[in-house]
Amino acid sequence: MAKTRKAKSHKTGSGTKTSSAIMVRVGKARNNRPMAEDGLAELRRRLLEIADLNAAGSVLSWDQATYMPPGGAAARGRQGATLRRLAHEKFIDPALGRLVDALAPRAERLSEDDACLIRVVQRDFDKAIKVPAEYVARANALGTASYDAWTRARPANDFAAMVPFLEQLLDVSREYAEFFAPYEHIADPFIDDAEEGMTTASVQAVFAGLRRELVPMVRAIAAQAPADDTCLRQTFGEAEQLDFGLEAARRMGYDLDRGRLDKTHHPFCTRFSSGDIRITTRVRADDLGDALFSTLHEAGHAMYEQGVSAALDGTPLGHGVSAGVHESQSRLWENVVGRSRGFWEHYFPKLQQRFSNQFAGISLDTFYRAINKVERSLIRTDADEVTYNLHVMLRFGLELDMLEGRLRIKDLPEAWRAAMKADLGVVPPDDRDGCLQDVHWYGGGVGGAFQSYTIGNILAAQFYAAAIAAHPDIPREIANGTFSTLHGWLLDNIYRHGRKYRPDDLVQRATGSPMRMEPYLSYLRAKYGALYRLPEKQRRSA
Amino acid sequence: MAKTRKAKSHKTGSGTKTSSAIMVRVGKARNNRPMAEDGLAELRRRLLEIADLNAAGSVLSWDQATYMPPGGAAARGRQGATLRRLAHEKFIDPALGRLVDALAPRAERLSEDDACLIRVVQRDFDKAIKVPAEYVARANALGTASYDAWTRARPANDFAAMVPFLEQLLDVSREYAEFFAPYEHIADPFIDDAEEGMTTASVQAVFAGLRRELVPMVRAIAAQAPADDTCLRQTFGEAEQLDFGLEAARRMGYDLDRGRLDKTHHPFCTRFSSGDIRITTRVRADDLGDALFSTLHEAGHAMYEQGVSAALDGTPLGHGVSAGVHESQSRLWENVVGRSRGFWEHYFPKLQQRFSNQFAGISLDTFYRAINKVERSLIRTDADEVTYNLHVMLRFGLELDMLEGRLRIKDLPEAWRAAMKADLGVVPPDDRDGCLQDVHWYGGGVGGAFQSYTIGNILAAQFYAAAIAAHPDIPREIANGTFSTLHGWLLDNIYRHGRKYRPDDLVQRATGSPMRMEPYLSYLRAKYGALYRLPEKQRRSA
Repeated sequence: MAKTRKAKSHKTGSGTKTSSAIMVRVGKARNNRPMAEDGLAELRRRLLEIADLNAAGSVLSWDQATYMPPGGAAARGRQGATLRRLAHEKFIDPALGRLVDALAPRAERLSEDDACLIRVVQRDFDKAIKVPAEYVARANALGTASYDAWTRARPANDFAAMVPFLEQLLDVSREYAEFFAPYEHIADPFIDDAEEGMTTASVQAVFAGLRRELVPMVRAIAAQAPADDTCLRQTFGEAEQLDFGLEAARRMGYDLDRGRLDKTHHPFCTRFSSGDIRITTRVRADDLGDALFSTLHEAGHAMYEQGVSAALDGTPLGHGVSAGVHESQSRLWENVVGRSRGFWEHYFPKLQQRFSNQFAGISLDTFYRAINKVERSLIRTDADEVTYNLHVMLRFGLELDMLEGRLRIKDLPEAWRAAMKADLGVVPPDDRDGCLQDVHWYGGGVGGAFQSYTIGNILAAQFYAAAIAAHPDIPREIANGTFSTLHGWLLDNIYRHGRKYRPDDLVQRATGSPMRMEPYLSYLRAKYGALYRLPEKQRRSA
Repeated sequence: MAKTRKAKSHKTGSGTKTSSAIMVRVGKARNNRPMAEDGLAELRRRLLEIADLNAAGSVLSWDQATYMPPGGAAARGRQGATLRRLAHEKFIDPALGRLVDALAPRAERLSEDDACLIRVVQRDFDKAIKVPAEYVARANALGTASYDAWTRARPANDFAAMVPFLEQLLDVSREYAEFFAPYEHIADPFIDDAEEGMTTASVQAVFAGLRRELVPMVRAIAAQAPADDTCLRQTFGEAEQLDFGLEAARRMGYDLDRGRLDKTHHPFCTRFSSGDIRITTRVRADDLGDALFSTLHEAGHAMYEQGVSAALDGTPLGHGVSAGVHESQSRLWENVVGRSRGFWEHYFPKLQQRFSNQFAGISLDTFYRAINKVERSLIRTDADEVTYNLHVMLRFGLELDMLEGRLRIKDLPEAWRAAMKADLGVVPPDDRDGCLQDVHWYGGGVGGAFQSYTIGNILAAQFYAAAIAAHPDIPREIANGTFSTLHGWLLDNIYRHGRKYRPDDLVQRATGSPMRMEPYLSYLRAKYGALYRLPEKQRRSA
């Protein structure tokens, strides 16, 4: 085996018999099959090839973020780009469009899975062909160059260096929106990419309602004595931290026969197939919460992906439905479960056992308050559950201002500081911890980058409330370290469907209503009303 | 970054702006360029895309052998096959053939690198188009199924289960040879794949000469008291073993900014680009030599790949020239250097320091004899330098017998036992340690699988002798733990050229003569004449 592999690795591009080019011919048409079925088989064959190219691209990205030696970076960028480009070229092939067009009128005679597949492929195809390959190349090259500049500009606190990049990125983002004209609002195409069925106006309505509740809540909490979180700021061994988080994720339902955890600079979750869905985390010796909660967060994404029906694998239906629903699962497992008192009734004794020096004299109450400390802070990714959404809304508002042309790039730092002061009552001392802190705009352009985090928070509470309504025992089970009823409800109602239903349709099916803010507000009021004194009106509704 | 990555990983096959499809247009023709240069740029662009696909396939294979969770296997096989198939399809594109045909007559007006590129691409293309895609698919599917069966049949000692597979594989191998008819010998096409310029007859001539020397040498050594290698069979920590081997490889010249070492079941070396060339090893707690020497062996392959001129990267010139020359480098660093007395004059005190409990009372002489213990054994991969080639020749002979139709598959076990008894004087008690031991035939078919190991041994000694002739200080430097002069000579004379020259041309340029057996025989006589009493004639020539 060693030698065979080696021999293969030294051959490149030759067609000799040692190359492992297996021709995958899925569902080759037989003579007695109806035409629609043949077309479907051909469509599935094409989609599978595209899925394989994209999965390979994801393996390359994972490797780049985990184990790749520094010397590999230059070629790796090009290799990944080649795979993504080939996948894009194959997806916008007019022959694929013709297959879909021929199948669409017969959709009602297909199985439900197949009818959903036709709908989703048609949507993706219609969007993809509006975007010229030349644009994709140009926008990505700009994003790559800008990302590279940002990795230097942020530590140097050098916003000026990013102004020309961000100006170009904003132009390119506007150009993208024009491919989908006419629209109600220039941000609508970005929102539709992330959250099918939502618009700028509907996001704004949700956010306005939420802001009315959150601003006074944060104000009230900030006036009180801050929680003591020094117990989290001791020194913790790396291997022990990783083990503890992964074991908790495994108990929640993350299947390690089909997944694994590795260290990286930026935590993420990635899917290679239904049998291989991986997470990464980072570890800080002096902050127990960082690795632990990012592991639970990414495990939430991964449990969603692992739960998608294996029958949908290799098609555009074979993964989570939207950024917002995806984020609802990471936030549900990280926060609603992982920062709940019940969860730690079971796990805190285990934590004390594992880190006996650090937690010998610490009470569950102290620990619980520490991991739920609310504070007005500068950095979104470090923010608590209550203030987090204000960080998101601030960014969403600035995005709209930039896209609409009301805010010039050079005025962004000042606008950022003003918004932070108004919403959070703190002002960053520099741009590093201000408008340079998030990569999103600098790496991917302006538009649709942030709203999904808050949509995820709202949906997490709504899904959790629906699960509890169906199974009132869930909180008691969690306090016993058992997650199977909750996990089972999520599998049945969300995970297994993949992208079969539109996000709003999925929410309606799972919870009996469209997206609603009330479960989230009730959740925040109950949890933080127990931890802090809240304004009278908010305590009443709890 | 975390969020951007995540968003990407949840999108598949859509053409939205978050996909990272960068269009790579290398050397787009300008109007004022001569036509040959334009054709060359287009050829290079196509070859780079093929190289990217193959490199991605290699990343997938590396991941599969190192970190992939078990659930990923099914999809991973298909994903890798898709990449190899696309690379093959793009390589046999008639448009690529036309580019080469147009450039070939102008080769003398091109740079040396470009002229070599045209020659090699033409050779690879002419071979590749002779092999139908349908055959590649069928042969690989058979190989995959057979490999899978072999992983069960070997531990179960069940040769009967492999008979139908091996019969089909032999048919398929014969079919492959026919694509290259007419030939002198049916094994010639396989030899030509691995060792351009060699034939079955030339390999047979080399092997006959070597066998005449080795058989009496082995007989003489086997009559003497065996070396005591119990010092290698103690208990050694895994991390310490890996560290020690990797540090030695690094000192030899393996650049860890462009490489890394991971654990796997079967050691191998793999190249993703000139900046990312990785090795793997396995570790046995009760056998110090296993991880150590397989690390040095794979590091030899990796140093060769790392030394190929970066300007050749992404083309068929950008890797080692042949299986035999590649093996010469792994065997040179593993054996000629890594099992030399001088090497351990420097490293044994370090080994004693690292493993102080295990080596406190052991002398350098005892250790040196242990790592060079010659014995008649059953398993090729565990064989010492002297008997190793007899294992290879036995397999080569049986391969020819099978291909020529003189040996039926069902008679292979008996033929194996007879050959082992005749050449090595030992007979395997079962097929597990007999004709089932190597994966080569069962995974890849019959033909050209083994001869390169012995060619590598012969060339290793020839290259080393030439390096010493140019720099007589090399042995003294090695005894001081310095390898830069030897490494530099190999870089200049072998590594940097990649596939530019034919293997025989490269050997001639580097050593001033064609491949010769005398340096290897001198090496064996000198080294093993000092360790054992050899027959009078052989001692005289030492």
